[in-house]
Amino acid sequence: MTRFEPAAAGPDLYERIRRLYPICRSITGDGVRETLRLIAEEIELEVREIPSGTPVFDWTVPNEWNIRDAYIANARGERVVDFRASNLHVVNYSVPVHGHMSLAQLRPHLFSIPEQPDWIPYRTAYYAETWGFCLSHRQLEQLEDETYEVHIDSSLAPGHLTFGQSYLAGETADEVLFSSHVCHPSLCNDNLSGISVAVSLAKILRDRPRRYSYRFVFAPGTIGAITWLALHQPQAERVAHGVILACAGDRGPLTYKRSRRGGAAIDRAFAHLLKDRPGAQLQEFSPLGYDERQYCSPGFNLPVGVLSRTPHGCFPEYHTSADDLDLVAPEALADTLSLLLELVDVIEGDATFRNLNPRCEPQLGRRGLYAAMGGHTGQDRRLREAALLWVLNLSDGGHSLLDVAERSGLPFGTVRDAAASLEAAGLLERMRSA
Amino acid sequence: MTRFEPAAAGPDLYERIRRLYPICRSITGDGVRETLRLIAEEIELEVREIPSGTPVFDWTVPNEWNIRDAYIANARGERVVDFRASNLHVVNYSVPVHGHMSLAQLRPHLFSIPEQPDWIPYRTAYYAETWGFCLSHRQLEQLEDETYEVHIDSSLAPGHLTFGQSYLAGETADEVLFSSHVCHPSLCNDNLSGISVAVSLAKILRDRPRRYSYRFVFAPGTIGAITWLALHQPQAERVAHGVILACAGDRGPLTYKRSRRGGAAIDRAFAHLLKDRPGAQLQEFSPLGYDERQYCSPGFNLPVGVLSRTPHGCFPEYHTSADDLDLVAPEALADTLSLLLELVDVIEGDATFRNLNPRCEPQLGRRGLYAAMGGHTGQDRRLREAALLWVLNLSDGGHSLLDVAERSGLPFGTVRDAAASLEAAGLLERMRSA
Amino acid sequence: MTRFEPAAAGPDLYERIRRLYPICRSITGDGVRETLRLIAEEIELEVREIPSGTPVFDWTVPNEWNIRDAYIANARGERVVDFRASNLHVVNYSVPVHGHMSLAQLRPHLFSIPEQPDWIPYRTAYYAETWGFCLSHRQLEQLEDETYEVHIDSSLAPGHLTFGQSYLAGETADEVLFSSHVCHPSLCNDNLSGISVAVSLAKILRDRPRRYSYRFVFAPGTIGAITWLALHQPQAERVAHGVILACAGDRGPLTYKRSRRGGAAIDRAFAHLLKDRPGAQLQEFSPLGYDERQYCSPGFNLPVGVLSRTPHGCFPEYHTSADDLDLVAPEALADTLSLLLELVDVIEGDATFRNLNPRCEPQLGRRGLYAAMGGHTGQDRRLREAALLWVLNLSDGGHSLLDVAERSGLPFGTVRDAAASLEAAGLLERMRSA
Repeated sequence: MTRFEPAAAGPDLYERIRRLYPICRSITGDGVRETLRLIAEEIELEVREIPSGTPVFDWTVPNEWNIRDAYIANARGERVVDFRASNLHVVNYSVPVHGHMSLAQLRPHLFSIPEQPDWIPYRTAYYAETWGFCLSHRQLEQLEDETYEVHIDSSLAPGHLTFGQSYLAGETADEVLFSSHVCHPSLCNDNLSGISVAVSLAKILRDRPRRYSYRFVFAPGTIGAITWLALHQPQAERVAHGVILACAGDRGPLTYKRSRRGGAAIDRAFAHLLKDRPGAQLQEFSPLGYDERQYCSPGFNLPVGVLSRTPHGCFPEYHTSADDLDLVAPEALADTLSLLLELVDVIEGDATFRNLNPRCEPQLGRRGLYAAMGGHTGQDRRLREAALLWVLNLSDGGHSLLDVAERSGLPFGTVRDAAASLEAAGLLERMRSA
Repeated sequence: MTRFEPAAAGPDLYERIRRLYPICRSITGDGVRETLRLIAEEIELEVREIPSGTPVFDWTVPNEWNIRDAYIANARGERVVDFRASNLHVVNYSVPVHGHMSLAQLRPHLFSIPEQPDWIPYRTAYYAETWGFCLSHRQLEQLEDETYEVHIDSSLAPGHLTFGQSYLAGETADEVLFSSHVCHPSLCNDNLSGISVAVSLAKILRDRPRRYSYRFVFAPGTIGAITWLALHQPQAERVAHGVILACAGDRGPLTYKRSRRGGAAIDRAFAHLLKDRPGAQLQEFSPLGYDERQYCSPGFNLPVGVLSRTPHGCFPEYHTSADDLDLVAPEALADTLSLLLELVDVIEGDATFRNLNPRCEPQLGRRGLYAAMGGHTGQDRRLREAALLWVLNLSDGGHSLLDVAERSGLPFGTVRDAAASLEAAGLLERMRSA
Repeated sequence: MTRFEPAAAGPDLYERIRRLYPICRSITGDGVRETLRLIAEEIELEVREIPSGTPVFDWTVPNEWNIRDAYIANARGERVVDFRASNLHVVNYSVPVHGHMSLAQLRPHLFSIPEQPDWIPYRTAYYAETWGFCLSHRQLEQLEDETYEVHIDSSLAPGHLTFGQSYLAGETADEVLFSSHVCHPSLCNDNLSGISVAVSLAKILRDRPRRYSYRFVFAPGTIGAITWLALHQPQAERVAHGVILACAGDRGPLTYKRSRRGGAAIDRAFAHLLKDRPGAQLQEFSPLGYDERQYCSPGFNLPVGVLSRTPHGCFPEYHTSADDLDLVAPEALADTLSLLLELVDVIEGDATFRNLNPRCEPQLGRRGLYAAMGGHTGQDRRLREAALLWVLNLSDGGHSLLDVAERSGLPFGTVRDAAASLEAAGLLERMRSA
């Protein structure tokens, strides 16, 4: 197990996004399949196909949507709006259409952003049988009052909803869940960033010893998460900690949104880790957002939070063509991955101990415990000595190492290392239930 | 049930004060009777007469005090201090006196406010058999060293203590109490304002469906509240929420003083409502003040707070002749009433629900729930959609709608309306004990 | 019992420090004995001698160290570093040494503070058999490259560890512990200040009625506290409140470091008392520091905090020759003592009462309770009347007087006096367990 070098991970994280970027994804269809096929080239992936019409809690798996081509052509036969230029040009889940119509007839089916005249908006119509085109406001303004050929070569018919998952068994069946939605077409931060970080994390954890089992879910937003939960209720009950990865690659500071529980271990772990990251934000839970709406619904109430950089809806490029390869950065993706590895360190390393010499301090000098930490100087050494004393003082069976880190303000890793030294010296006993 | 229009209520609220202003009230006597008679012209009122000498907890109902006339006349027979000019001129509960005396003899019985030389102070001597005159400092300074005729034509003799109450039965016997003290003579903000707001509120609630029963108590301060409590212990036990109305008509911002419990539903409801009122203040409970001293005594500990604008003792005109018809304003009175109606909405509308589809979100679109809220646009619509999701997410049987409003930061009304829509759609079940 | 006059106590407190200053103390040996002998001239003191080798929890009582003389002499026989000039010149617990050596050989045994070139550092080597000299950096720089005679006339051999304690029996066997370390040589603030304040406090409390029993422990730091705890486990279990006194005489504001419990009565009492002391600080517990490391180890977890002025390590003179008679001030020592007497007032006076007239206020005027507090005017009188109402309101058997003081913001003494008046009037009943 080699130590992770964040800087080195950036290019791979970014290259994966570049590769997935052109695919036209949706909540069903071949775009998701192709995305999962590329992921499966890197990590072991179980891909599931759930038939349209399958009931999943209050919902039904919808018909499958696929698209081959779409355009608006002017009287001279020129494509003035062309799916081949950007898959955002078609409202996602548009039903097939072909015909000629005046601009006035076409107009209600056209969507732009007047405030951002160069950007194409991203729109969907999953549960409304309709069609439409998205285009930049400049394009819209140049449309003249003539007759247009309108063509959407799509299909919406019984088929399947597709999702993938990768499972890494650990010492216990308790699971850590990482979930990324895979339903967005050519949008980078939302959510190729989350997908890419999850794939790299899975590759790293595959080669490490694991106390927990780890599950990486790649599913369409909302209906995909609902379908996954409907089919994995026993697994959901085993989720000890979970993170939704979304908007994880822009240059903004990190943001963690707490689970519905608010004070779950995952919430406390992120709070501890983020307090030393300049600009990092903690958000309270709300039932608005991404798949925390499902994982944190009251019947599940899973300890699942959301890790983002700039949260969805809070960057101007959100759900537009400007969420492109320039918006995400290798360094930002690597920084997100780095935080997740720190999180895994906390989750894996957290434990509760009992001080076997609880009356007065044990004599650490005699056991060489101060010396054992030699090679360290100044501030570093002081932190390590403080950690020894804090772990001894709070190890009364009622405080975990994360508790110690929180109360002492010391980094979790320093606290965990101190506990390891004390356990090796026979001064601490590990409690069974951490 | 028509919606309340605050602006329209102001003139009535003010006019009622104008009508009650001239009466010389005290803790007993004809002034209180006349006040209750005028109230009874507007709302159904039970008036009780409790004989002097009746034991009420640690106290005894005192002798009844009445006054007809009082003055200080100079050697030329001119009234230099005249009860007919202001009933504040006589120390409330002064025993009868008639005689001639020098200024030196008279002086210990004269009270003024040197810092406010034009104002007459308001003083009482309920439980000390004495007498006195209050006058402006300018009047005092003009008194020359001569012999004065001093005359107080009062009576202090066995009689009754009088209070009134109006009861509006609701679906349940649990009560909401509004209490206003009626013992102050010609003082407007303290407390004709509280009386007037209570009367208007009673008139409005009379014509509405009511889950709770409502009780409006008009009693003298301290001894009146003690007497009411002594005679209504079963009713006191049924008080689910209570508000003392005092100093409710000046132009300052609203102030709510919490009940002794601090976190009672009434305290939380006012905190929720006031957070959006600019300048509004929340005060912690203290056992100093008005009748919260009795309602919140430890043997009762009722969930009763105090609603004021500028609290008693915090405006310079307090307990002086400057607490007159200019100090209170129709708009301020209407604003206080408006808040009370919002409070009633919270109290009446609060309930706890259970989400009948607790696993994942139900599909709201299919049920037209998003559309059902059509006609709303932009921010308004976003708030309503958010409210649907918040209510569903927190309706696990352990959160009331007020809890939802507090945690989401959404207005209570929006939350309640969302719950009604969801209940109508069969997605929520109302719990029995709200 | 006469009231304590802080200003008058300053000279005595300071004079005691002046007397103890020259003694060369350590964790064992004649310096501690001489210190305890001087204390025993003022208060009754039990002195204990614990043989070297005695096991005390995880530790063993070390060999006893004594020193008679030490110096470094140059080729001309001049003492360039001389124990007789300052006992800080010898590293405490240095083993005997006599010989001649070059500056290069001597250099690793010499310690100075380059940043404070005129100060001699204080260093110890308790559990490492070594020797050394401390000197000012100016002295060090003046040493020429010649051969020096090095002489330490010390002994390190089986003997005893010495500590003293003074016990003042009270009505109950529950104890209040004051603990001061006595192991530092000529250092005034750390910790002759703590010793001197403890001695004066013991003298004052000796002559007062006491509900609690009081114990003053004068023991070496760490090993002394461990030894005391090992030998006094039943007494430790009876510690209801405890304070470590250290660095208690400098001119900085007061600092209280909470016990491990954080919200023990002692912690709340100090928080209450310090909130009105300008500049005073509250520190959270940490297991770094002085003997709170032992008293607050998880197997004891005693309610023992630390009272200092500027905490150890936070003043530049800490553990140097500049912690001398100029660093401490009579006024500062008296102020610390004064706070401790206020603390004793809180501890002794705290009690829980039940209001015997819990329904509504009792009529205080009739009982002369307002008048009873006559002689007071204005603000003072208002505070006293408020205290009567607060005590009555919160005396439901669940709030102590300290609770009342905390919630009301009134001084504890005012609250306690109000409770005494109310108890005398038969309005309150004292609960058995305070």
